[in-house]
Amino acid sequence: MKIVIINSGSSSIKYQLINMPANEVICSGMIDRIGLETSNLTYVTDTTKLEETLPIANHKIGLEKIAKLLMDEKVGVIKSTEEIEAVGHRVVHGGSAFSNTVVITTEVKDKIRQLFDLAPLHNPANLEGINVAEEIFSLAQQVAVFDTAFHQTIPVVAHKYAVPNYLLTENKIRVYGFHGTSHKYVSENAIRYLEHNTKNKGSKIITIHLGNGCSMTAIKDGKSIDHTLGFGPMNGLIMGTRSGDVDQSVIFYLVNTLGYSLEAVNTMLQKQSGMLGLTGYSDLRDIEANAENGNADCQLALAMNAYRIKKYIGSYSAVLNGLDAIIFTAGIGENSSYIRKLVCTDMDYFGIALDASKNEIRSKEIREINTAESKTKILVIPTNEEIEIANQVHHLLLN
Amino acid sequence: MKIVIINSGSSSIKYQLINMPANEVICSGMIDRIGLETSNLTYVTDTTKLEETLPIANHKIGLEKIAKLLMDEKVGVIKSTEEIEAVGHRVVHGGSAFSNTVVITTEVKDKIRQLFDLAPLHNPANLEGINVAEEIFSLAQQVAVFDTAFHQTIPVVAHKYAVPNYLLTENKIRVYGFHGTSHKYVSENAIRYLEHNTKNKGSKIITIHLGNGCSMTAIKDGKSIDHTLGFGPMNGLIMGTRSGDVDQSVIFYLVNTLGYSLEAVNTMLQKQSGMLGLTGYSDLRDIEANAENGNADCQLALAMNAYRIKKYIGSYSAVLNGLDAIIFTAGIGENSSYIRKLVCTDMDYFGIALDASKNEIRSKEIREINTAESKTKILVIPTNEEIEIANQVHHLLLN
Repeated sequence: MKIVIINSGSSSIKYQLINMPANEVICSGMIDRIGLETSNLTYVTDTTKLEETLPIANHKIGLEKIAKLLMDEKVGVIKSTEEIEAVGHRVVHGGSAFSNTVVITTEVKDKIRQLFDLAPLHNPANLEGINVAEEIFSLAQQVAVFDTAFHQTIPVVAHKYAVPNYLLTENKIRVYGFHGTSHKYVSENAIRYLEHNTKNKGSKIITIHLGNGCSMTAIKDGKSIDHTLGFGPMNGLIMGTRSGDVDQSVIFYLVNTLGYSLEAVNTMLQKQSGMLGLTGYSDLRDIEANAENGNADCQLALAMNAYRIKKYIGSYSAVLNGLDAIIFTAGIGENSSYIRKLVCTDMDYFGIALDASKNEIRSKEIREINTAESKTKILVIPTNEEIEIANQVHHLLLN
Repeated sequence: MKIVIINSGSSSIKYQLINMPANEVICSGMIDRIGLETSNLTYVTDTTKLEETLPIANHKIGLEKIAKLLMDEKVGVIKSTEEIEAVGHRVVHGGSAFSNTVVITTEVKDKIRQLFDLAPLHNPANLEGINVAEEIFSLAQQVAVFDTAFHQTIPVVAHKYAVPNYLLTENKIRVYGFHGTSHKYVSENAIRYLEHNTKNKGSKIITIHLGNGCSMTAIKDGKSIDHTLGFGPMNGLIMGTRSGDVDQSVIFYLVNTLGYSLEAVNTMLQKQSGMLGLTGYSDLRDIEANAENGNADCQLALAMNAYRIKKYIGSYSAVLNGLDAIIFTAGIGENSSYIRKLVCTDMDYFGIALDASKNEIRSKEIREINTAESKTKILVIPTNEEIEIANQVHHLLLN
């Protein structure tokens, strides 16, 4: 089954063509800066690596261009769009309406539209991607995979805020959680690994997704029961440019006493805070290099970042009343031995003991980086949201 | 040494006259609704209990009235204000300027004034109390005890927010913490108790102050190293009418999408949230009674309250890398066996095992409510901020 995966943003489309059930990526690429004269397109197969700058006016023209490349005589990988049996769409916000992957119908599209307010940057772009894909891959089944779906199992005690009840019942303000596709993928891989390779059964695990956005999930018996991101994708861990948790009284003080506009505060907390606000750098590799050269701001920012992760490990161990394993994933989680080391230092109360040399190994495989004696397993598991989406689409359509 | 303790609010004065070092409370009481025709005054000694409604125009007239009662022929306890050697003032915000109790000088008053912006409801009233007390008890030493002082040991990794650096360096935005006098008092009592009565040395403890405001402190070797309240007294635990932690994106959504004014959101999060917002009741006794009668909102609110406390126990155990004892204090902490039970259930991973029958005992004494086997001690310690202030004043003036 050939499945096209589409992650459609406001001015971008990321795509992959995956052959299932082999998990074989036939082709991948992206278009960004849609709407500009200088849109950028990439197209990568086993034998081709294409990069082009050209004007792409809108998502439809962009996706038509991709379809054309897929069928191109020279660099193409299919003969006709009819070969595509399904298109899997990443949809950021499924609200409380979607706890599973679904075949897209008019009703599903209506619900995605009703959630525009909750994800104004993402859901409209996701819906645009769906509409365009329906035209271009008109014979394929269109399927939506929601970032929030995995977190719909978070119980009310953890997903409700201590604000007036009508904000939940009428305005649907609650913890939704994000990065669900990644947390689901790595947690399932972790549980499989733990069952096969250790005596530890993985019923109480914490996944730590450290990428552009960062989040952690408490997972009990395979189900998300708590998560660091809430109603929006701003709080919890310290991220590249986002503050993560911040005392709300700071917001009122900035506006009421220091005279900031609320919009400026919002922009500050989303785009000028986090590691960038603390160090002046947004790329973690720069921050680590500077920290190693003695830059105190960079050292402190990394310590703060790890401190916040430690606190949530403790917090989620309480929620789980135990801890079988912690799992690092995504760009930083998979690649930064520095952050992993800071997080795992002085955590023996939680049975966490890092093997310093295993921590330094770089690999694309699942790996265990704890010492032999460590009561709690420490795993690094590369995430793969596209493969997870393809798996879910494949599974849904076969059943 | 006779010490008057003054806790001066915007329209109230709470006071005690304490004889040190005996910790003997000679007299206590309060005035509230200062500025109204129907101010209320109470005055309590061993032999007298007086309550009066009268117009009290301002703090000066109020404190003069109290001084008069203290020296009254019938109900008085002193002959002259000259007997008062010291006045201890509770001052809410000491900023980064004060990490200790200090004798009040012009410079100290200037600094308290410079902190008005950080505590607009409290510091002006505290300073007014100081000015008035200087006139009335003109021979006494005036001493300031700061709510924030105990938390000045919180290291930068825990007191800094992940926002642009200048907000800390220029605008002094950081975690200050509150209820410091209470956390200090109960933690010192806890450590003394643990040293004398158990093998557990109390170097890693968590104090849980549950009163009108609620907060928790991670205490290492007697020093505050992390705390749930931050820049203002709004976040962390769920309180009577305050939300505690809430995703900041909720604030932006309420204003930008639902059209609330920022002022309305501030009021909502401070006065219409917490247990009141979740249940319609602000008195915990009502909520517990209703929960026991099957009210689902009340049951959920109590579960959410305890869930948040559990998460911070986990979080602070990570920060401490261990846990010797948890300590419940203040109105709810001392009296609600219901909340204590919810918090201590399913926490055996942290060595927490509650003795159900000891938990039900009501007492004004320090008590241990864990089972004999419990690895982590669970203590209930009545707080006493006035005695703590008197102790600090006495200690400062003797040394």
